[in-house]
This record gives sequence, C-alpha cells and structure tokens, in this order.
Amino acid sequence: MDMFNRPAALAERSLEAHARWRGKLEVAPRAPVDSADALSLAYTPGVAAACLAIRDDPAKSYDLTRRWNTVAVVTDGSAVLGLGDIGPDAGMPVMEGKCVLFKAFAGVDAFPILVGVKDTDKFVETVANIARTFGGINLEDIAAPRCFEIERRLQEMLDIPVFHDDQHGTAVVVGAAMLNALRVAGKPIDEARIVVNGMGAAGCAIARHLLNLGAGNLLLVDRLGILARGAEEELRMHAAQAELAAMTNPERKRGGLSDAMRGADAFIGVSAGNIVTRDMVLSMGGRAVVFAMANPTPEIMPEDALAAGALVVGTGRSDYPNQVNNVLCFPGMFRGALDCRASMVNEPMKRAASLALAALVPPEELTPTNILPQPFDPRVGAAVAGAVARAARESGAAGI
Amino acid sequence: MDMFNRPAALAERSLEAHARWRGKLEVAPRAPVDSADALSLAYTPGVAAACLAIRDDPAKSYDLTRRWNTVAVVTDGSAVLGLGDIGPDAGMPVMEGKCVLFKAFAGVDAFPILVGVKDTDKFVETVANIARTFGGINLEDIAAPRCFEIERRLQEMLDIPVFHDDQHGTAVVVGAAMLNALRVAGKPIDEARIVVNGMGAAGCAIARHLLNLGAGNLLLVDRLGILARGAEEELRMHAAQAELAAMTNPERKRGGLSDAMRGADAFIGVSAGNIVTRDMVLSMGGRAVVFAMANPTPEIMPEDALAAGALVVGTGRSDYPNQVNNVLCFPGMFRGALDCRASMVNEPMKRAASLALAALVPPEELTPTNILPQPFDPRVGAAVAGAVARAARESGAAGI
Repeated sequence: MDMFNRPAALAERSLEAHARWRGKLEVAPRAPVDSADALSLAYTPGVAAACLAIRDDPAKSYDLTRRWNTVAVVTDGSAVLGLGDIGPDAGMPVMEGKCVLFKAFAGVDAFPILVGVKDTDKFVETVANIARTFGGINLEDIAAPRCFEIERRLQEMLDIPVFHDDQHGTAVVVGAAMLNALRVAGKPIDEARIVVNGMGAAGCAIARHLLNLGAGNLLLVDRLGILARGAEEELRMHAAQAELAAMTNPERKRGGLSDAMRGADAFIGVSAGNIVTRDMVLSMGGRAVVFAMANPTPEIMPEDALAAGALVVGTGRSDYPNQVNNVLCFPGMFRGALDCRASMVNEPMKRAASLALAALVPPEELTPTNILPQPFDPRVGAAVAGAVARAARESGAAGI
Repeated sequence: MDMFNRPAALAERSLEAHARWRGKLEVAPRAPVDSADALSLAYTPGVAAACLAIRDDPAKSYDLTRRWNTVAVVTDGSAVLGLGDIGPDAGMPVMEGKCVLFKAFAGVDAFPILVGVKDTDKFVETVANIARTFGGINLEDIAAPRCFEIERRLQEMLDIPVFHDDQHGTAVVVGAAMLNALRVAGKPIDEARIVVNGMGAAGCAIARHLLNLGAGNLLLVDRLGILARGAEEELRMHAAQAELAAMTNPERKRGGLSDAMRGADAFIGVSAGNIVTRDMVLSMGGRAVVFAMANPTPEIMPEDALAAGALVVGTGRSDYPNQVNNVLCFPGMFRGALDCRASMVNEPMKRAASLALAALVPPEELTPTNILPQPFDPRVGAAVAGAVARAARESGAAGI
C-alpha cells in the first residue's frame, strides 16, 4: 500500500461518490398515502386523533410519532475532523455520514442540523428551541472550550440526552481500548502512568473518563506542557483543564511531552501528526501502549512506534490494527439511551459502554493487535445499547 | 355512509395506525457503510474531500449533500388543523404526515422541525439559525397574524424559499378551483362577485391570490363583518386585513356574512362549520359556486348547498367531489422551487401553480363535480413543479 498516493486517491474517489450520491441520506415514508383512505388515516382528517392524544398526554409523542427513535446531529462546523473551523455547510458531509452510521449500526433515525451561529448563548438557545423534535441531541465537531459550556447548558435545560460525541464517544472507545491494552501489557490501570497529549474536547473527556475507569496516575499534556495543579496561569488553562489538573499528575511533574512520556506506561495522542519521535517511545516503560489517534496522520506511525519497542499500538485509521473508532460507541450509546428514554448520558452509562466494548474481546482472544471489536462486528451496537440502558436504569437516568 | 359514526371510527383507526407506525417517517441511508472501504468513502477519512470542496465553494453543498432536495416543515403548533393552539408536540403527527406527502408526491425529503417558542423574534431567529440545513422552509400551522410577519422576515433574511402552506398552498389550490368553477358557471373572474369568509392566514392569502388571478369584485368577511376601506378601527383589523380592505369591496358594502352573500357569484369559506344556511345560498346569484372548506365540518354540507341551488360545491373533504386539498400544491411547488434553486416563492410562481393545476382538467372535462385533478393523479406534482420552475426562471427568482 502506497502511503503517499493512497490518501489522494481516496479523496478523489470519495468526492466522486459524494457527487454521485448527492446526499447520503433521505427521508423515507413509513405510512402509505396511496389511496384516499390511507391519506385520511395518515393525514387529515384522521391524524387529528393522534394530535389530540398527544395534546392530552405529551408523553404519547414517544408512541405516536418518531421522537422515540430520532436524534439530531448538531454542529456549527467549528472543529470538523482535523480540518478546523470550516463552517456548518462544509461540515454537512460528516454530519450526513454520521447519520448513516446511526441508522446502519443501531437503527437510530438521525438527522443533521447545521447551526449558523457561533455565539454560545444563541447556539444553545437555537438547539433548545427545536429540541422537542428529537429524542436526543448528538453534538458534533464543535470547538473547545465552547463545546463544554454548550453541552452542559443544553443538558441542564433539556430532559433528553445531550452527548458531544467528539468528547464522550472518543472517551468511551479509548477507555475500552486502554482497559484491554493494559490487560495485554499486564499493567493494572490504577498504577499505570498514562499520558494524554492534546487537551481539546477529546483529550479532556478522555482524561475524565479514564479517571472514572480507575486510572490512578494520569499526566495530561497541552501545547504549553504538563498540566499541574497550581500552574493554571502559567499554562493558560481553561476551566476544564484547570479542573483536570487538580485531579491528575500526583507527582506534580513539570515539563513538556517528552518529559511526560519518559517512563510512562501508556500514551494517548489526540493532538497532531508526527509530534512523537521513536526516541520518545523508546523512553517509555517496557510493554508500552501507544494510541496515536491524530487523523489522518498519527502522532507517530505505528511501524515506528513498534520499532521503538511499543507493545500495543492503536490509531484512528482503518488500515492498521486496533482502530479506535467512535462508531463503536455512538450508535449503541444512543440506541440504549433512547430505548430506556434516558434524560441524560451520565458517567455510569459511559463507563458501562466502555466495559461492554472491552468485554467483546474476551481475555483468551486479547493480543497486541486485537484489543477492540471491529466496527462492523454486529454484536457491538446491541452490546453497548444493552449495557447503557442497564446503567441508565440502575443510576436513575432512565424514563421507562 | 354514516355521516355521524364515520369520523369517530376514522379517528379510532387513525390512532391505531399511528400507534402501529410509531412515526410516519424515518431516515434512510443512501450510501453504503458495510465495509472498511465504504466507511472510508462515506465517512472518515475520505469525507474530508467533500467538506473541503464545500468550504472552497459553498454552492457545492447543493451537489455534495442533500440540501438540494431537503425542506424543513416548521411549526410552533399554534394553529394545527382546526384544533387551535395544541402546541408543537401535538402538531407532530401532522408534520410527519406532511413530510410523507412531500416524498410520496414529489420526491422531496422533508423533515419536521418543532419550534418550542412562540415569541416572533425568537421563532424567526431559531429558524434562520438552522436554515442552512435545508433548501427550503415550509411553515406550517402557525397562527395568524403572527404567521405573516414570520414568513416575511424569514424570506427577507434567507436566500431559500420560505412558504407558509396554510396561506399560499391553500390559496393556490382554491385559485385553481375557482378558475375552473367559474368556467363551469360561465362567469368571468374579473366580474364575478366572490365572497371570502374567514380572514385568518388562509383567507387573507386566498384574497390576495384571487386578486393576482384577476378577481375584480372581492368581498372579504371576518367575524365582525365585511371588510371595507375606512372601517379598520370598527372591525379591529390587523395590518394584513387593512391592506386587503383597501384592494377589495369596490362597492363599499357593509354588513355581515348574509349581506355579503346576497347576490354573490361565489362563496369561499375558511372559517367554521355550519355557519352558512340554505337561505344564504339561496340568496346568491344563479349558478353559484360554494367552497365550504372548514374542516372537518364544512360551513354548509354539500347536499344542503346543492339543494339551495348552488351549481358547483367544493369542500376540504375527500368524501365529496371537488376536494380542495393543499396536497395538490405543496409537493410540486417545492419540487419546482428546489429544481431551479429558487430564492423565494413569488407571485408569478403561485399564479403559475394555479394555472397549471386548473389546466389539468381540460375544458371538455369540466363539470360541476370535476373542477380539480385528484390528489393521486400522478401528473399533478410534475405539472405544478414544471410551471413553478418556469415562472421562477422568467421572474428572476431561480438560481440555476
């Protein structure tokens, strides 16, 4: 496989395919309107009966309309893939793709909503104003730190789940991958020193989620260095980072990425391509875990990480083993949340999703190149959905 | 057919059907994601090429995403059918039904959007903020007079068509029906005295549209009486009504509905059930046209209007001849507007739609019980779409 030609060829094929599809999703009727009688049942005058039933009992909107199965995929296009702030229109191909995955992998009807304003207040108000159309809100490709406030405020306002996939979907899948990678490496998660590089939306969520999964020694690294309690000013942290600094770095280490990686057991990159050298991997502890997830160019190419002694290497790419792909999480996560009419996605639900994903590769099948199920494994959506719904019920987040 | 039992039985059957459907529409993928290669084309990393193409040329959103074929059906649920202000949740069954009709009759992908605020500023801002998701906005079941301002402001802000179907869809179909009914009655539209009763959203739009179709003697009647220039205060008119009062009632008639109907050639009711008596129809001129469109109970039952001497009788009901049904207009109207990427729906487009609909019943087939094509006539959508796109191009509203 030619590493240099392949991306260009893929881009060309994808552009051609998009021009052929002219949209990756469509709206399909589920009720017939092919006769006067059918029309009078699905539309006027019969439809009035369904309207009045919901007016008298608003919860019936989950029985008589599609709300029970419908999720909005909402973006302002401010952080699309690794392309940055390309705006909502240019983000649409990703949103449509996401909606296709929702349906294909978990039967969820997802519809993209492009929000043309970046002001946080206006964005929140706009989404809140249309939220009753949906049974859940998937926030997508919204830049940090704005995404934190948007998610928090929307979840406070709404009684349906609000889930920023770039944060929590990534965190859930990385969490599952790390649990299994550390099993392969024979290192307990509460003792392993895990470095997370890149403190954007994904990095912050991964850090918080690893803490919830029992990580005992996290080192978080941003462009300005290792986050440490008391260094807020110096490192120009935003609130989410400062909060994390207080919960991590027990040894109060200072310095840059190479200082953080020296002696570390695991590295998670959600940062930028080609910023990790072979020497940096060489400086890690034995049987090291390296998740280099910058897309499309990882922090270090897998072959280089392996050559420098890493035991388990994962990326976001489909052309290497151990692909850490959000699609393992979000369809099943929403399937589970919708199935139990959850009012939110809470920590127990995310934790349950990671554990369910990890459990799909049983101990006897765990190897350095097999720590996660494949995206197309038909068990994935149902396993995640079941675990999420159970956790929602046990934690009091479920509505039914 | 039992006129008294039928509505109850229909309501029951419709409610059962809605509970079985659990939503009358769903989102269907148009791109495969069933292999790693397919996934990398429709989603990451290949999708980035489509994103970048749109970033570099925003018009490409019409080629590479579904925007070219997608319409929002937006409501606040403030005037749903004849049920009044039942709220957005309870309006959803109508919105879903509408979306099904869009797809079934014109291939348009329509998606319902419930707006949970009634404040006009907030409603307008919310819809404008998500408008770039769509190629057109169909406003639905929004109460007058608010609906006038909402439509006007949104159309001023957006470069995609904004169309309040309860106004203009109704007006287009009533216009077509009236053209043909007057042909049957042998009365020229510029001389016929036409009474419109009910000056809500539909009534005002019908009046304005009939003027555009050449009506020369309109009498508009509201609850407080016949609209007349100079009577604004007395009749507590809102701005839209006052504007119409200045363009109608050339004889400066005063009085109530029965005064208006005396000697009239045509009656159009978009008001309330059972408010027109046989005597009132009897007082009309010979070969009278009666469109009694209150739903589900017309202003006067067709058999009563016919017994009182009316020649052509139409209603909104599917169980009588001459059903005046919006579905004859809105699918083809948006099909035409989308096909030529119109920036608005202007008067020439609406006029063209009425003329195209009327022309589908050729002179030799016109009878008192056959003035409109059937809703399921497969020629309807294409005929309206073609005429609308042509008119848009000729009037400068088309983008391609």
